[in-house]
Amino acid sequence: MKQLTYAVIGTGAIGGFYGAKLARAGQEVNFLLHSDYEHVRREGLRVSSCDGDFSLPQVHAYSSTSEMPKADVVLVGLKSTNQHLLRTLLPPLLHPGTLVILIQNGIGLEADVQKWFPGLALAAGLAFICSAKTEPGHIRHQCYGSINLGNYSCADVELFQTVLRDFCSAGIDAHEVDYAEARWRKAVWNMPFNGMTVALQTQTDCLLRNPATRQLIYEQMMEVIGAANALGISTIDESSAQKMMQMTDDMVPYSPSMRLDFDFHRPMEIHYIYTRPIAEARTAGFPMPRLEMLERELLFIDAQNH
Amino acid sequence: MKQLTYAVIGTGAIGGFYGAKLARAGQEVNFLLHSDYEHVRREGLRVSSCDGDFSLPQVHAYSSTSEMPKADVVLVGLKSTNQHLLRTLLPPLLHPGTLVILIQNGIGLEADVQKWFPGLALAAGLAFICSAKTEPGHIRHQCYGSINLGNYSCADVELFQTVLRDFCSAGIDAHEVDYAEARWRKAVWNMPFNGMTVALQTQTDCLLRNPATRQLIYEQMMEVIGAANALGISTIDESSAQKMMQMTDDMVPYSPSMRLDFDFHRPMEIHYIYTRPIAEARTAGFPMPRLEMLERELLFIDAQNH
Repeated sequence: MKQLTYAVIGTGAIGGFYGAKLARAGQEVNFLLHSDYEHVRREGLRVSSCDGDFSLPQVHAYSSTSEMPKADVVLVGLKSTNQHLLRTLLPPLLHPGTLVILIQNGIGLEADVQKWFPGLALAAGLAFICSAKTEPGHIRHQCYGSINLGNYSCADVELFQTVLRDFCSAGIDAHEVDYAEARWRKAVWNMPFNGMTVALQTQTDCLLRNPATRQLIYEQMMEVIGAANALGISTIDESSAQKMMQMTDDMVPYSPSMRLDFDFHRPMEIHYIYTRPIAEARTAGFPMPRLEMLERELLFIDAQNH
Repeated sequence: MKQLTYAVIGTGAIGGFYGAKLARAGQEVNFLLHSDYEHVRREGLRVSSCDGDFSLPQVHAYSSTSEMPKADVVLVGLKSTNQHLLRTLLPPLLHPGTLVILIQNGIGLEADVQKWFPGLALAAGLAFICSAKTEPGHIRHQCYGSINLGNYSCADVELFQTVLRDFCSAGIDAHEVDYAEARWRKAVWNMPFNGMTVALQTQTDCLLRNPATRQLIYEQMMEVIGAANALGISTIDESSAQKMMQMTDDMVPYSPSMRLDFDFHRPMEIHYIYTRPIAEARTAGFPMPRLEMLERELLFIDAQNH
């Protein structure tokens, strides 16, 4: 297979990191930029990483997808609060065989994009990474960095495997996973910690140190696991909750992305991280009262935060 | 029946208000004071009230119950976070026929005091009042003011009725109510609004204006009603929740007592307002997941607030 052409929509902490790794490894990567387009066009991208810093003095930077070449693979790192933009951002990049990988948090993301683009090949990218874009063109990668890819609707198995190999060749720890299981497994961590760090204005370590909130976080994890089970995903069980508690105990004190969005007065990704999984669980007859309460608290907080 | 001797333990917004009304009407009322003892001994009590201001230039003020005369009726207006103090505060005031009325918020208050004083005659006082002690010896009564008395363990029916008459003669709108029903009916309002105004740093009106939190408040009310029903109290139903929503819509924007405690960095009454009713409901097999989550958030917030 000839070398793939990549496009990155949303060159931030996530899309910027994986795109920069691929570009450094020699892949053709075209970046869509917004606020720091001029800076990146002049100066390129800089990645300060726990695995070693690197710079890309020259990258293919664009301010509009209509000027970008068509792509074999589109990596979407957009905030899901801007998901509607994909309806106009994606078409110029697509040829009949394009694979779009949504490296975003939440449940229901692929379903919505599939509805807008019925024939499109879609996959989920589940990033396990602590990173942030702290200045124009500058990504700080603090720890972790692996990505799991779950095939949602890509019939071209060879393309999907090539992408996996490209990621691995670029020094990224990448694996294929079951789509639905992976999205819900990630929700086991995301749903409790994203919202609770906002609701209580705190970080992961404080939530786990207080016995009351430690118990609450665990119960919220069990709600996600119960929902996944009710939806037929049987491979996630109580041991997943225990492992994630342990993993978070071992992490540095951490502010999840929703807490950062709140702190910077940006809209929070409530729809795909809370509303959609809660609605999916409800269709399977499984209520999530604690996470539904958290969703409502977040909707209140979000409305006050702009 | 001869005139009764009253004692007030906790001469604050509640105990101070009802005690002052009784004293103004000519009842013998002895007040236990703490931080503003010296002030009240010199200056008396002042009540700025929506029903008309009044002052009591001289009141029977004490700094210790051991110096107070025995009382026929003790009104307890103590914060329930100091409930353990009753074990030492009460004995000097008690004669074999003393009735102790707990004018406090929560569930389980009488049960605990009864355990400490097995033979004691106890009643619940459920105050519907907006008031605050804003300065030493100065109570501001903003609105409402009625009190419902529920008999918990007072066999002396005549005494109980005399107290009711004394309250009415003092211009207080006082009624006898069923003990358990009244405590749980009040919890229908108290459990949602006290905690939610703290958790979201807001007031009653904002909670009801936002559709997400309005729905959450209603669901929390329904949890309390479900718990009451499970405990055999069948006279509280969904219409109670609707009435309380309506009543709160019609109120001025309000900060419940727990919000004031939080704002002034005082301990919050989490145990009797949340932990105990949740535990009682659990013994009846009724879970209260939203209010249990709120309890845990409050425990976290309380721990950070000192």
